Amino acid sequence: MTPPTLPERVLAGNARAIARAISLIEDESPSGAELIRRIFGSTGQAYLMGVTGPPGAGKSTLVDRMIAEIRKTGQSVGVVAVDPTSPYTGGALLGDRVRMQSHAGDEGVFIRSMATRGHLGGLARATGEVALVLDASGKDVVIIETVGVGQDEVDIVRTADVSIVTIVPGAGDEVQALKAGIMEIADIFVVNKADREGADRTVSSIEAMLSLHTFGEGDWRPPIMKTEATSGRGIPELLQMIERFKQHTAPTQGSRRRARAEWRLRELLGHRFLRHVEESILKAGEFEEILERIASRELDPYSAVDGIFQRSVRT
Amino acid sequence: MTPPTLPERVLAGNARAIARAISLIEDESPSGAELIRRIFGSTGQAYLMGVTGPPGAGKSTLVDRMIAEIRKTGQSVGVVAVDPTSPYTGGALLGDRVRMQSHAGDEGVFIRSMATRGHLGGLARATGEVALVLDASGKDVVIIETVGVGQDEVDIVRTADVSIVTIVPGAGDEVQALKAGIMEIADIFVVNKADREGADRTVSSIEAMLSLHTFGEGDWRPPIMKTEATSGRGIPELLQMIERFKQHTAPTQGSRRRARAEWRLRELLGHRFLRHVEESILKAGEFEEILERIASRELDPYSAVDGIFQRSVRT
Repeated sequence: MTPPTLPERVLAGNARAIARAISLIEDESPSGAELIRRIFGSTGQAYLMGVTGPPGAGKSTLVDRMIAEIRKTGQSVGVVAVDPTSPYTGGALLGDRVRMQSHAGDEGVFIRSMATRGHLGGLARATGEVALVLDASGKDVVIIETVGVGQDEVDIVRTADVSIVTIVPGAGDEVQALKAGIMEIADIFVVNKADREGADRTVSSIEAMLSLHTFGEGDWRPPIMKTEATSGRGIPELLQMIERFKQHTAPTQGSRRRARAEWRLRELLGHRFLRHVEESILKAGEFEEILERIASRELDPYSAVDGIFQRSVRT
Repeated sequence: MTPPTLPERVLAGNARAIARAISLIEDESPSGAELIRRIFGSTGQAYLMGVTGPPGAGKSTLVDRMIAEIRKTGQSVGVVAVDPTSPYTGGALLGDRVRMQSHAGDEGVFIRSMATRGHLGGLARATGEVALVLDASGKDVVIIETVGVGQDEVDIVRTADVSIVTIVPGAGDEVQALKAGIMEIADIFVVNKADREGADRTVSSIEAMLSLHTFGEGDWRPPIMKTEATSGRGIPELLQMIERFKQHTAPTQGSRRRARAEWRLRELLGHRFLRHVEESILKAGEFEEILERIASRELDPYSAVDGIFQRSVRT
């Protein structure tokens, strides 16, 4: 009898195999791609929750409380936290250890921070693939937690089944945070640290923005939930609201998942083409030579792309 | 005599031509690419300053003060503010109008917010191209201002000649903000709203993080500047520090500009390939069919990419 392969062990929910699979993805190893191929048919079962918001919104604590609440129903949970690591702190791994402690010994919980800092879109791609691994491993719920309000976070979170945007009262510039591209992706707003001064003002400013938008009949109007993640207050209500959203969007979940497939396909195609150009089209040192000519303004980037492109594609 | 072309008018510094050129870039129009080709040879003269930080850090006010300070030396300034617009507010244009007022009638200042929300990397690409337009138009300094701490902002700001990371005291979670990937790109830290309670604590926590890092002899150690953008306090010192940084990095500026060229080339190549696949390789409706098969788990994304790729490239 041959020992079970890595994909088999991932599908069986083995925690060490999951950790190994995630490392392959982070390393952009070809075996990572092969693994995704093998497990992909078993994905699509988990419900994907995206949680994002500016730094300091208390997302980690919120997610920890959500895990505990979901576990009460017997469902298993996988978490991928996108937390670009600083070389100064080596943050992600340390954070994992701290966070895992509150769920130590619970086999129904798997938490992993992503430290990948690849090329363009690399982080979002890797995050999506880690979510696939957790999904295939049998987790009922997969939570994708991102810090920030940039395009990349929007890309990551918009492809989840439900997008939760976390705001914290206090800095007085909540409206600015809302403006920065996250307003449009929120299915549910969470005003966390709701015991703080200014919480009601924050709720009002979100309300005011929502009131500028016309919702059609049957449209989901993003609700604003108040939580205190440190005490756990408001968390059961948040989970109930997610369940309501899930039921409301059940008829259109297919299109959301198609959008996710599209994003993934585009990203992989672009990535694959760049690798092809570097490995098979350009001669050794040619890439650097082209860069040098662009940097010195001798060649413009569009003409450079034209030249490489003509040599690369079938016409 | 034929009237001057758009590239010619951009090179002459005509404000209406600059605005028109930026619109072409935002619309991802082919004439935008053609324009970049024409003006590219005249770029590389401006000094590019990147300013980023979490929402609420007072970046707009800070940049306004920096403009005023730079203008005192007679240098002209172009600003591109990356401010992902919410469909709820239509924010960017309104904001431009407000911001331009403080420099109204000053032909040495051009400010434009970017509302582009394209595909993967589209925002960063467009921002870079707008910076090229401002550079070609003869602006001595180009400021790229981004909101957020995500990968995309990091990509945008890291390619500037100097990266300024703005932090605001108050929310009590500054360290979290620092962790989120911006620590490693900062050439200069600015603790803005330095009159606020907690400013010294914020400075200390940045200091503590810096002290974990070993700087070699001759390495630039990111200084921490305190500013009060609303009163203008600390702004002259900030500009002096930028000048010191500029002199310190003059010997290595070439490699920074090559990194910028590389980022741009990769991004354009990926973008161009995707367009080629959609326009020339796939049959009508085929892309949707592939997405459907991926969404239904009949086909995995890596195998889909293999198939499309084989049909697209010379082998």
